[in-house]
Amino acid sequence: MSRVFNFSAGPAALPEPVLREAAGEMLDWHGAGCGVMEMSHRGAEFTSIIETAEADLRELLRVPSGYRVLFLQGGATQQFAQIPMNLLGGGSADYVITGAWSRKAVGEARRMADALGGAVRVAASTEIDGFRRFVRTDELDLDPRAAYLHVCTNETIHGVECFDSAPFARATDVPLVADMSSHILSRPIEVSDFGLIYAGAQKNIGPSGLVIVIVREDLLDRAWAGTPSVMRYRVIADNASMLNTPPTFAIYIAGLVFKWLKAQGGLEAIEAVNRAKADLLYGFIDSSEFYVNPVERSARSRMNVPFILRDETLDKAFLEGARDAGLLQLKGHKSVGGMRASIYNAMPLEGVRALVDYMGEFARRNG
Amino acid sequence: MSRVFNFSAGPAALPEPVLREAAGEMLDWHGAGCGVMEMSHRGAEFTSIIETAEADLRELLRVPSGYRVLFLQGGATQQFAQIPMNLLGGGSADYVITGAWSRKAVGEARRMADALGGAVRVAASTEIDGFRRFVRTDELDLDPRAAYLHVCTNETIHGVECFDSAPFARATDVPLVADMSSHILSRPIEVSDFGLIYAGAQKNIGPSGLVIVIVREDLLDRAWAGTPSVMRYRVIADNASMLNTPPTFAIYIAGLVFKWLKAQGGLEAIEAVNRAKADLLYGFIDSSEFYVNPVERSARSRMNVPFILRDETLDKAFLEGARDAGLLQLKGHKSVGGMRASIYNAMPLEGVRALVDYMGEFARRNG
Repeated sequence: MSRVFNFSAGPAALPEPVLREAAGEMLDWHGAGCGVMEMSHRGAEFTSIIETAEADLRELLRVPSGYRVLFLQGGATQQFAQIPMNLLGGGSADYVITGAWSRKAVGEARRMADALGGAVRVAASTEIDGFRRFVRTDELDLDPRAAYLHVCTNETIHGVECFDSAPFARATDVPLVADMSSHILSRPIEVSDFGLIYAGAQKNIGPSGLVIVIVREDLLDRAWAGTPSVMRYRVIADNASMLNTPPTFAIYIAGLVFKWLKAQGGLEAIEAVNRAKADLLYGFIDSSEFYVNPVERSARSRMNVPFILRDETLDKAFLEGARDAGLLQLKGHKSVGGMRASIYNAMPLEGVRALVDYMGEFARRNG
Repeated sequence: MSRVFNFSAGPAALPEPVLREAAGEMLDWHGAGCGVMEMSHRGAEFTSIIETAEADLRELLRVPSGYRVLFLQGGATQQFAQIPMNLLGGGSADYVITGAWSRKAVGEARRMADALGGAVRVAASTEIDGFRRFVRTDELDLDPRAAYLHVCTNETIHGVECFDSAPFARATDVPLVADMSSHILSRPIEVSDFGLIYAGAQKNIGPSGLVIVIVREDLLDRAWAGTPSVMRYRVIADNASMLNTPPTFAIYIAGLVFKWLKAQGGLEAIEAVNRAKADLLYGFIDSSEFYVNPVERSARSRMNVPFILRDETLDKAFLEGARDAGLLQLKGHKSVGGMRASIYNAMPLEGVRALVDYMGEFARRNG
């Protein structure tokens, strides 16, 4: 099969030029005589790769000084435990629940708080509304002495996104901690609104097995004494993400993705494309009698677009027809059913056009 | 530069056919329409990749039933903490120190025991002998009630290897836990001698960012309550290494390496090559007045061969000449100095011949 339009929620499609470059350099990176997978992480070649990757990420996100960028392992799910280990300090943390992922985060944090000593509070939840909107600041029941306030700014399963972090940063003096796994690098953000940002790589950054943490320096020294060395933010920061061997190939691919993003014109440019893609798809869904997206308009994710067919008996035929049309991975998450189109940075507008064309044709044939 | 002979201790050289296959499939794996990095880990394609990798690894190592194979992240260094979290159970563990890596393991275990409650004992150490031999069972000061006995069966920095695990398994009734990072898959082993085997991938398995744990089922349920979900052996076993997104590309490469090993004839065949490589190199060193390897003959690692030049003022010239001859990464670890040739499975006999030829010529020119 030639390359398809791959709507996977993650691991997700990567930019084709990145894959071509990685394939071309697989046996010999820049005349080193070996590929990136085979290089000592302490050598000059890999040092230049990780340093360039960090510099490019800082430039793209305009990371202010006073923040450290860490390349870690274990995925966002490991961060669900690692964050309380590093930041709870025997106190209490506030969590906002806006979908399946923030609900998982609070569950793991509770387990950790029970074991480490400390507490976890739910500051707000939109579960009663079926996770169809983001939370409003006037709903927050905040603990002014909380160790931090945790939010998930894009819910991959429920397709709910927070587009403005400023009101949340203004609502509290405690550090805002954000899981941005599924929309980081999709548009500019204000890093200084946050104490800590984390993101699994396998959507907009690169391969799975890499997670990026951007953390304000004053939060580096609060770790519980039993935090494993590889999980202590201070230790990783002091060792430039190389206390032990980092996931070198994943960092290299992430670096190529950052270069590709810069070549696209950076985050303002990619935001314009992402906005056009989302507008096209949501616009089509709203104009249709056949498809429905349940999320409040102001909170609709530009990255993950869940939708249902009004007649769910057609789901199987829809997915089979999509596959035949070269449109893959459209099945919704098993917890919510229906369909989901994940349209991350690497998905071109052309792919969303092809999806909308197919959806229109399928509706006409079956309407 | 064309491909060199890469003696890196890790990340280390990979078999060229593996790299060629990965490069060729980077944009489209077996007609899937996307590369392995871009696949959902829950789909049929990746499920077949991880299941085949596990089956091939089990076949190569003859893993008995009653053992689970886990694909994890964080490297062996994360296991240094994860093992006490999962196995200490408020008790005491015994550690054998035979080099830099087992010393690191005991340091991390002590930190964990202090925080979790529990203790760590040193059952034996060869540090006073400069880590030039493996430990003998008659030196072991064993706690019969220990939660486990930890050994590192190949010390990457000091070049010391344990070739027979049976006496250690017979010496105690407690589970034997072994760090095999730098010699796993270099020859057949008796898995049933061990309660748990772990190995970072970046030597004989695949890319960094993947660690493999082989654990006996009766050890799955001893975890401390605060162990993060992604670090609980039981949880990972029950979720077939996919509680969250695993490092999919690293697992895929590992699977290709396992296939390559099977095509070489399995572990008996690769052991014969590894023995020939080690015999050639150690034989040359011993016959020379110019180079020295300090390790007792019976414990000399077949994977990591540290050696010094009797005249260390020639070190720089040796390394420069080696580089010009296409022999890279020969500098010894900074903690011990001198040189080190890591000759893992992917290093052909031809590479060791080229090294010995160069060493002979350098000695003649400078002797």
